[in-house]
Amino acid sequence: MTLSIAHPADFHVHLRQGVLSELVTPHVREGGFSTAYVMPNLKPPITTTDQALTYKATLEKIEPNVQFLMTLYLSPELTPDEIRNAKNAGIIGVKSYPRGVTTNSDGGIESYEAYYPVFEAMQEVDMVLNLHGENIHILNAEPSFLPHLHKIHSTFPRLRIVLEHATTRAAVEAVKACGDTVACTITVHHLDLTVDDWAGQSWNFCKPVAKYPDDRQALRDIVRKGHPRFFLGSDSAPHPPSNKSTCTPSCGCAAGIYTSPILLPLTAHILESFGALDRLEGFVSTFGRDFYKLPANGSKVMLQRASEEGYTLKDESVVPFWAGKQINWTIPKQ
Amino acid sequence: MTLSIAHPADFHVHLRQGVLSELVTPHVREGGFSTAYVMPNLKPPITTTDQALTYKATLEKIEPNVQFLMTLYLSPELTPDEIRNAKNAGIIGVKSYPRGVTTNSDGGIESYEAYYPVFEAMQEVDMVLNLHGENIHILNAEPSFLPHLHKIHSTFPRLRIVLEHATTRAAVEAVKACGDTVACTITVHHLDLTVDDWAGQSWNFCKPVAKYPDDRQALRDIVRKGHPRFFLGSDSAPHPPSNKSTCTPSCGCAAGIYTSPILLPLTAHILESFGALDRLEGFVSTFGRDFYKLPANGSKVMLQRASEEGYTLKDESVVPFWAGKQINWTIPKQ
Repeated sequence: MTLSIAHPADFHVHLRQGVLSELVTPHVREGGFSTAYVMPNLKPPITTTDQALTYKATLEKIEPNVQFLMTLYLSPELTPDEIRNAKNAGIIGVKSYPRGVTTNSDGGIESYEAYYPVFEAMQEVDMVLNLHGENIHILNAEPSFLPHLHKIHSTFPRLRIVLEHATTRAAVEAVKACGDTVACTITVHHLDLTVDDWAGQSWNFCKPVAKYPDDRQALRDIVRKGHPRFFLGSDSAPHPPSNKSTCTPSCGCAAGIYTSPILLPLTAHILESFGALDRLEGFVSTFGRDFYKLPANGSKVMLQRASEEGYTLKDESVVPFWAGKQINWTIPKQ
Repeated sequence: MTLSIAHPADFHVHLRQGVLSELVTPHVREGGFSTAYVMPNLKPPITTTDQALTYKATLEKIEPNVQFLMTLYLSPELTPDEIRNAKNAGIIGVKSYPRGVTTNSDGGIESYEAYYPVFEAMQEVDMVLNLHGENIHILNAEPSFLPHLHKIHSTFPRLRIVLEHATTRAAVEAVKACGDTVACTITVHHLDLTVDDWAGQSWNFCKPVAKYPDDRQALRDIVRKGHPRFFLGSDSAPHPPSNKSTCTPSCGCAAGIYTSPILLPLTAHILESFGALDRLEGFVSTFGRDFYKLPANGSKVMLQRASEEGYTLKDESVVPFWAGKQINWTIPKQ
């Protein structure tokens, strides 16, 4: 059995800097994706059009076959003029994510009124606002963020807003209740994990953390329903293994789950596990592209069942012994 | 956990002709092997030095990074002069395998006396005789072949002989009882399968067929013991999927199991499953090289646990989510 998927797009991905960026950026394509909506959380964060274009050029040099969609970090320095400048330069969106206790923050959740002139300009030029709606207390932060979403949406009804990496039933319901200008990304790992999976397993720890089975069920249900305002943003976040493992009590663990190199196969596997394989193309490609107004280019990616995995050359093909079975040893990629 | 294995050598492999050969020959290297002892069973079979050298050049053009060790097919046309010619040209061995009911055959087992002048020449110039000791009735042929092995060995005690793809306790005991000039290859699939695995599953059907649990135990025991005259010959035999599957009652099924592209990881996995991982290097490299008088060149192949599989660039590395777990979908290799 094979599937042909139109031009998958990952609407939330961390591509980092330096050597780590050289390592992980090609994995977007390895994971089956040809469009990446890129996080601006570098050191320092990307707050200007010039920085974003420089970063884009760096990424394109590493991986010329991926379309990189660039974003700015929402910060007090951002002005309406810079928004118009960014729009003209092809930058797609502005990202708001927790900055801890800084100016314009209220108990960890930002007070957004200070940004209203920026949002006004974004609405005017049709840029997208990405809200990373969780902070501080990991298990209850998302619901407490949702009133901010509603307030911004009602104040700027034509501003396209994406609530990033939803993890709760409350978030799903909140986005559903909004108008057509509000969408939501869901990661593939949040369709798989619950609290029990990261308790004691640091490699499954990310922010926002996976919640309870009922929350996961809400995420799965909205995907199975094929709701066009819910689509994939992997939040794929690479960290060195030393920052993920907790070999000793003093090991720190970074939040983040890395899915880029296996993203499309894994998404197919997990959607199939809850009866939503027929929604794969919508979830990984068409729904997000439609919301972002980015038409597909006609290219396709093929998937096949791993149990049928083989090798083909012209009219010859072969399938190895143990195809589809787990082999516990591997020759590392060079 | 990683393992470093000296220069693995597969002492029994089918590399075919034409497009199929172009497809499968690079898989020797993909499977972690840099030396391949090549079957001469082409159409027509390789019976002369010139044919063997032409075939070798074809294989080297497809995959320049593998050392191909060439063989001739034992047939009535082969003369002592051609043996000396072959030896001078770097050909390593001569293969005897069932030809069905032909001249010089006795109930499917060849009568070898007619070949004694050839064996005499082989002993003189130190070429290897490879005996494929099974034919006709699949479950009892190997033991009935063993007297032939003993007779040739006692007649030509300095002739190096390899009994190919042993599958029975009787074969293991027979080779053990011989002197140092008699060795034995074992496939990785015969260390895994028994009768029950191929009954009803045509993809596990090969010749010789996998035998009973006690036979497999004998194979595993001799590998675990690290006996230096028992080493890997994969008998990796690619067939088109249409010749392996039995989708309808009229589908034919070719005998053969294809292991080349996964050979070293699979061998490590299976040896570990019966407590013989510490014998891996002997089994896949040093024992066979010593018997064949082919010193290793110092190169190594690294293996790591699949659950640790990740990506590394300079000083950065990342490990993806679900590493070591089976994902049921895959993007086909281009």
